[in-house]
Amino acid sequence: MDRWLAGRIQRRVDPVGVRLELWDGSSAYGGTHPPVGDLLVGDRQTLLGLAVDPDLWFGERYMAGCLEVRGPLEPVLEALTRLVPQQHSWRDWLPRAFGSGNSLRGSRRNVHHHYDLGNAFYELWLDRHLVYTCAYFPQPDATLDAAQEAKLDLVCRKLRLRPGETVAEAGCGWGALALHMARHYGVRVKAFNVSREQLVWARERARREGLTDRVEFIDDDYRNVTGTFDAFASVGMLEHVGLAHFEDLGAVVRRTLRRHGGRGLLHFIGRDVPRPLNAWIRRRIFPGAYPPTLAEVTTGVLDPAEMSVLDVENLRLHYARTLAHWSARFAAAREQVRARYGESFRRAWELYLAGSEAAFAAGSLQLFQVVFAPRGSEPPSWTRSDPSGPRGAPV
Amino acid sequence: MDRWLAGRIQRRVDPVGVRLELWDGSSAYGGTHPPVGDLLVGDRQTLLGLAVDPDLWFGERYMAGCLEVRGPLEPVLEALTRLVPQQHSWRDWLPRAFGSGNSLRGSRRNVHHHYDLGNAFYELWLDRHLVYTCAYFPQPDATLDAAQEAKLDLVCRKLRLRPGETVAEAGCGWGALALHMARHYGVRVKAFNVSREQLVWARERARREGLTDRVEFIDDDYRNVTGTFDAFASVGMLEHVGLAHFEDLGAVVRRTLRRHGGRGLLHFIGRDVPRPLNAWIRRRIFPGAYPPTLAEVTTGVLDPAEMSVLDVENLRLHYARTLAHWSARFAAAREQVRARYGESFRRAWELYLAGSEAAFAAGSLQLFQVVFAPRGSEPPSWTRSDPSGPRGAPV
Repeated sequence: MDRWLAGRIQRRVDPVGVRLELWDGSSAYGGTHPPVGDLLVGDRQTLLGLAVDPDLWFGERYMAGCLEVRGPLEPVLEALTRLVPQQHSWRDWLPRAFGSGNSLRGSRRNVHHHYDLGNAFYELWLDRHLVYTCAYFPQPDATLDAAQEAKLDLVCRKLRLRPGETVAEAGCGWGALALHMARHYGVRVKAFNVSREQLVWARERARREGLTDRVEFIDDDYRNVTGTFDAFASVGMLEHVGLAHFEDLGAVVRRTLRRHGGRGLLHFIGRDVPRPLNAWIRRRIFPGAYPPTLAEVTTGVLDPAEMSVLDVENLRLHYARTLAHWSARFAAAREQVRARYGESFRRAWELYLAGSEAAFAAGSLQLFQVVFAPRGSEPPSWTRSDPSGPRGAPV
Repeated sequence: MDRWLAGRIQRRVDPVGVRLELWDGSSAYGGTHPPVGDLLVGDRQTLLGLAVDPDLWFGERYMAGCLEVRGPLEPVLEALTRLVPQQHSWRDWLPRAFGSGNSLRGSRRNVHHHYDLGNAFYELWLDRHLVYTCAYFPQPDATLDAAQEAKLDLVCRKLRLRPGETVAEAGCGWGALALHMARHYGVRVKAFNVSREQLVWARERARREGLTDRVEFIDDDYRNVTGTFDAFASVGMLEHVGLAHFEDLGAVVRRTLRRHGGRGLLHFIGRDVPRPLNAWIRRRIFPGAYPPTLAEVTTGVLDPAEMSVLDVENLRLHYARTLAHWSARFAAAREQVRARYGESFRRAWELYLAGSEAAFAAGSLQLFQVVFAPRGSEPPSWTRSDPSGPRGAPV
C-alpha cells in the first residue's frame, strides 16, 4: 500500500526530476535524468499528506521534521513549483469566498502574526535597515545592503520626488523607505503601519538620524490615511490587503492624492493568473495574504480611484535573488533561531524562504512595481530617462 | 424651441468653457471664464443631433460643414473630451455584443477601408517612412521623423534583439519597423499585413534598401502566422483585433514564440476602463476597432498564451504630440486633400486627427507598450538599464 501510493506520487514528480525515498530506503524514481534532489519521506502520515493535499502537508510535515530534503532545498522546491497546475481547485477559493479576514481588526491580527515576531529576529537575517521586500540589484552580484538601498532609490526616482513635496506611505515596515525619501529627496512623509514592533524601531531610527521633523510614523491602518499628498507609496503591503478590500485602498488613493501632479507607486507580489497563496504559507506564515494579478489591481484599485497606469516593471528574478540572500543569512543564524524559537519554527522559516525563492524563480509568483497618476493629469516625467528628476538617473 | 435646446446643451458644456452659437448668432454661454472656443451650429438638424447623440452627430455634422469651430479645433475637442462620462450607455455595447466583425474576411474589409486609401494620401502627412503609430519623442521638440525613428528603436531595445534572431511582426503597416530591425539589429523578420497597398510600398522599399533577404512581407492575417520566433512584435494592430479575437492572438503568440528566451511586445491604443471607441470614429474612420484596457489584454491575450508581463510603459502624451504633428502636416496639405478626396473627407480627417489628439491629451485614450515573455522563462535582460543589448541604451 505505501509503495503503491509512493509510486503514484513518484510518477507525478518524475517529469521534474524529484526522487521520493521512503523511510525504508525504497524509491520508485523513474525520471529519465539523474534526480534534481531527494525527498525523504519519514513516515506513513507524511506520505498520506503528500498524496491528499501536498500544498498544505508538504509544509506541515517538513516543519515537523518528518519530511526531509537531501541537499539544497531550493532546487527541489523550484522543480515541484513548476509542477503546480495553473488551474486551481475549488478548495483554493474558500478563503476568497469567505473574505480574507482583513478588516481593520483582522489586519492588525494578521500583521501581528508575522511582523511582530520581534525586531531581534529580523535583525538576524535582513539587511541593516530591515527592508523586508524585494531588493533591486543593479548588478546581479550587488550586496544585499546595496540592493535594498538601490530599491529604495528606484522607488523614489520612479515617483520623481522633489524637495518640499509630501508623501503618504501605506505599510511602512521598519521605515527604511520613508527615511530614505526624507533624507535623500527632501520630502515630508507620513508613514502608516499597524505593527507596533516595527514602529518602535522606525521611530528610534528617525530620532537617531534627526529626521523626526520630516517623517511621521503613524500607528494606524492604511484605510485611515487622511490629508492630501503629492505622492503615495506602498511597498509590500498590497499582498496583505485582500481582494475584498481593494476598493478601500482605491478610495484612499483617490481621496489623498493630489489631482494635478500627484502620482503613486504600488510594489507588490503578484501573479499572472488568479490563484490563492499556497495553503501552508497562508496557515503558518501569512494569514490573510493574497498575491493579485495586474488585472485585479487595475480593475480593483486603480480604476475606482480614477488612476491611469504609467509604468509597470516586473522584478521577479530580483526577488528570487533577495530571497537567496535571506536564506543564506538565515542559515548562518540557524543555531540562534533554533535556540530561541525552536526547531519547527526554524524549519518552517527555512522552507518559507526557499519555497518563495522557488516560486519567483519558476515564475509562479511575480513582483510588480506599478506607477500611476490621476487620469488625464500631467505625468511626472516626459520619458523614463528624462533627467529632470533630482538624481537624474533613468528608471 | 431651438433656444431652449441650445440652452440645455450649453449648460452641459459650460463647465469646460465651450460656447455654443446658433445660426442666428445667439448664445446662452454661462461659463465663469472666457470660452475655450466657439462651436458654430449651422442648422436645426445639427442642434438636434448634438442633443440626441453628440458622439455620433458631432462628427457627422462637422463633416457636412454644418458644424464649425471658430479657431483651433483641438482645444475645443479636448474640453469636450473631458466631459465624456466614464460610464457608457447600453448603445455603446452593441458592437461588442454582436462581435466586432473582425473575422478573417471582416478584418481584411475593415483594414481595406482605412489603410488602402492610397499610399499617396498618407505620404502627404506622415513621416518619410510612413509610420502610422505613436512616435516616441526623446525630447518634446524632436522632429516627427526623428521621433518615429526613436520609437522603432525603442521597440527594438525593449525586445533586446540580437543579430541572427528571428522576429514575427503582426500588422506591419508600411514595413518601417521590420526594416529598422533588419538593418540596425541584424535580425530576420516575417512581417504580416492584409493591406495590399501597404505591402506594395513596403516590398518596394525593402528592394531599394537591399533588405529582401532579411525581411519577408507576407500578405496574410496575423492568425496565420506560422513558425517559431525569438521575438514577436505588434505595433498598432491590437486595437483592430477586437475582444472577440484576443484569444486567437494569444494562441498565435503561444504557438510561435520560443519558450526559452522568447519575448514579445504589444504596442496599442488602450483605455483605463472598458469603453468602445467613439461612435463616429467607428462609423467613418475605424470600423471594427476597439481600444482595450490593460486588464483585457493580460486576461484576454497574455494569460491564455501563458505569458508574463515584464514591462509596461504608457506613452499617452507622445501620441498627443504625434497627432499634433500629423494635424499640422495635414493642414499644410489641405488643398491637395480637398482637390483629390473632396471637402467632407478633408473635414472628417481633420476632425479625426484633432479629436484623437484631444483624447490622448485629456487621458480618455492611453498608449501602452507591453513587453512579455513565456511564464517562468529567463527575461531578456536583468534590469531596464542593463547595457548588454546591442545599442546599450536604457529602455
